[in-house]
Amino acid sequence: MNIVRPTLLLNEAICKANIRRMAEKARRGNVLFRPHFKTHQSHTVGRWFRDEGVSKCTVSSIRMATYFAADGWQDITVAFPLNHLEVQEINRLAPSIQLNLCVVSAESLSMLLTKLQHPVVCMIEIDSGYRRTGVGPGETSQLDEIISVIASSNLLKFGGFLTHAGQSYACRAGTEILKVHQQTIQIMKKVGLRYRRDFPELILSVGDTPTCSMAADFSDVNEIRPGNFVFYDIMQRGIGSCTNENIAMAMACPVVATYPSRKEIVVHGGGVHFSKDFIKYNDGAPVFGQVVKLSNDGWELPPTSMVIKSLSQEHGVLDVSAEELEKIKIGDLVGVLPVHSCMTADAMGEYYTLAGQRIGMMPKI
Amino acid sequence: MNIVRPTLLLNEAICKANIRRMAEKARRGNVLFRPHFKTHQSHTVGRWFRDEGVSKCTVSSIRMATYFAADGWQDITVAFPLNHLEVQEINRLAPSIQLNLCVVSAESLSMLLTKLQHPVVCMIEIDSGYRRTGVGPGETSQLDEIISVIASSNLLKFGGFLTHAGQSYACRAGTEILKVHQQTIQIMKKVGLRYRRDFPELILSVGDTPTCSMAADFSDVNEIRPGNFVFYDIMQRGIGSCTNENIAMAMACPVVATYPSRKEIVVHGGGVHFSKDFIKYNDGAPVFGQVVKLSNDGWELPPTSMVIKSLSQEHGVLDVSAEELEKIKIGDLVGVLPVHSCMTADAMGEYYTLAGQRIGMMPKI
Repeated sequence: MNIVRPTLLLNEAICKANIRRMAEKARRGNVLFRPHFKTHQSHTVGRWFRDEGVSKCTVSSIRMATYFAADGWQDITVAFPLNHLEVQEINRLAPSIQLNLCVVSAESLSMLLTKLQHPVVCMIEIDSGYRRTGVGPGETSQLDEIISVIASSNLLKFGGFLTHAGQSYACRAGTEILKVHQQTIQIMKKVGLRYRRDFPELILSVGDTPTCSMAADFSDVNEIRPGNFVFYDIMQRGIGSCTNENIAMAMACPVVATYPSRKEIVVHGGGVHFSKDFIKYNDGAPVFGQVVKLSNDGWELPPTSMVIKSLSQEHGVLDVSAEELEKIKIGDLVGVLPVHSCMTADAMGEYYTLAGQRIGMMPKI
Repeated sequence: MNIVRPTLLLNEAICKANIRRMAEKARRGNVLFRPHFKTHQSHTVGRWFRDEGVSKCTVSSIRMATYFAADGWQDITVAFPLNHLEVQEINRLAPSIQLNLCVVSAESLSMLLTKLQHPVVCMIEIDSGYRRTGVGPGETSQLDEIISVIASSNLLKFGGFLTHAGQSYACRAGTEILKVHQQTIQIMKKVGLRYRRDFPELILSVGDTPTCSMAADFSDVNEIRPGNFVFYDIMQRGIGSCTNENIAMAMACPVVATYPSRKEIVVHGGGVHFSKDFIKYNDGAPVFGQVVKLSNDGWELPPTSMVIKSLSQEHGVLDVSAEELEKIKIGDLVGVLPVHSCMTADAMGEYYTLAGQRIGMMPKI
């Protein structure tokens, strides 16, 4: 592959191993594996999941559900609060698949009902502590109200409860992550118990990448929905969800300038390529990517740690040691492990296997 | 326009007024106006510049130069360090336009020469204090070396010096910005004087949005290249480059959840829509966008200040007062002024005038 511009590379073997490991964990744990596809946004990678026996998936928008339905996915959960303004799009999609919507209020569901024409399944989102969206587990009157709206229409079926324990992203150790996992499971179990008598088939669905990567015990829930694990990234490595060896993506960036006196080099690779998520290293300085050495069969971590210290629209500025600087020339390609692979893949709109196969993603517009 | 998803709106009148104001300032200042098109990335908006008599432009990549050349732009500066790996793309484009490349080292230029087939103009980038890319103004041996490489080939023509005083983005007052402007002009003037005898026609090109918005005196330079001013944003407002009335873009976002007890609402509108640039308000908390009230003829600032306090991939979480919360229902659309309009437009890939006309941008891939 002749790389002349920022190009997002996917190590297919690492990616497939990440998929296989999570699929096996779900089988061992006796839970349904409904991976979140917002990370890869690709029919091709979706098919790699199918090869592992996965037949149901999660997405973050109706548009993304439509994209995956077009490739044969027949049971899709939109894990983003129902936006009843999209009722036309829902009516177009619902006849052809089992569409599971995420409900956070009786209000939006009632609004949806005024124009809904086809059956959908309602998953109620529980806020298990992340404090972003969802109904609090103790807000039983709100839960009852939503369930009564569901019961009022034969187009709606109650599917169960889902939650996203996004607070796990603030963890920095396995024990912390497992604690979040156990708390989440306990909350969901309790919510489930209250409604199980009326709805014996209800699903309890959990699933963020940190807890699903670290936990082994999923008894008491039925379904996991991690997404980021398919590629991982240095944010997940920092959380403790993965090692460097599990990170399946690196951006190849051409070196366009070297500044020995500042111990910096500049690459073509900026915010429009990586997005602008960052993590902080021990000294508190923001890091926008970790530099790796590209090789014929992928990339390897150099013995010292070079990072992207700042990003503008097209420029990436890298901190380098004098020793590393000597080895790098203008026109070289450096690899960069992304901070947040979901955002980086989304910003790029495509990626390439090491064999040079282009992997298309859902079109942006 | 029936808006059901995050949709980036452009107030065409404000945008055209921003263009006209800067074009008039350049005429009064007797400098060439070569606007940076990386902000809007659109043939349509490019034509609005043409309507103001603009015939030369700046871009941030060879790809973007190719996109604008296809719409008739005949004199384009790529204000990003020359990446000689792109020589094929340069050879394809150079025959049809005057292509001005940005050179930061003799090394990359020599590498380019080994395969260059068509004439190009070389602008040498001066680092006037931003410390990102460019040759230091005092590094005369490096400047001489680049100029001698240029002189060695009849495919290369020396065009002059350009700089980007990006340090102006750290300013928070007009006086600070003007100081950066004056320092930049002095540096460029001095560099110019050293080479003017041999190159009487050399161009001195400056131009970031803060200094070009605040300064009126451009004597001693020949060209300005601001870009962000075409839309402005709340980062520029914070710097002091513009007022709220000059901001030409707002994202319309559907409200999908309300949380009165937390004084928060959640909208569909996340990092994949806004990108993740943020500014800090006085209390030090990050702000990812400023909420405005959408109206039939655009938007207006509400009396109190509501902001996006956090973004995930698709969610935006807004801080609201109890009073504001009472007025907002699920399914409403709120407007959000972006932090960094260049990054937001790039993330969206398209925008719409208030009359509902779609404005296409350079395709991402």
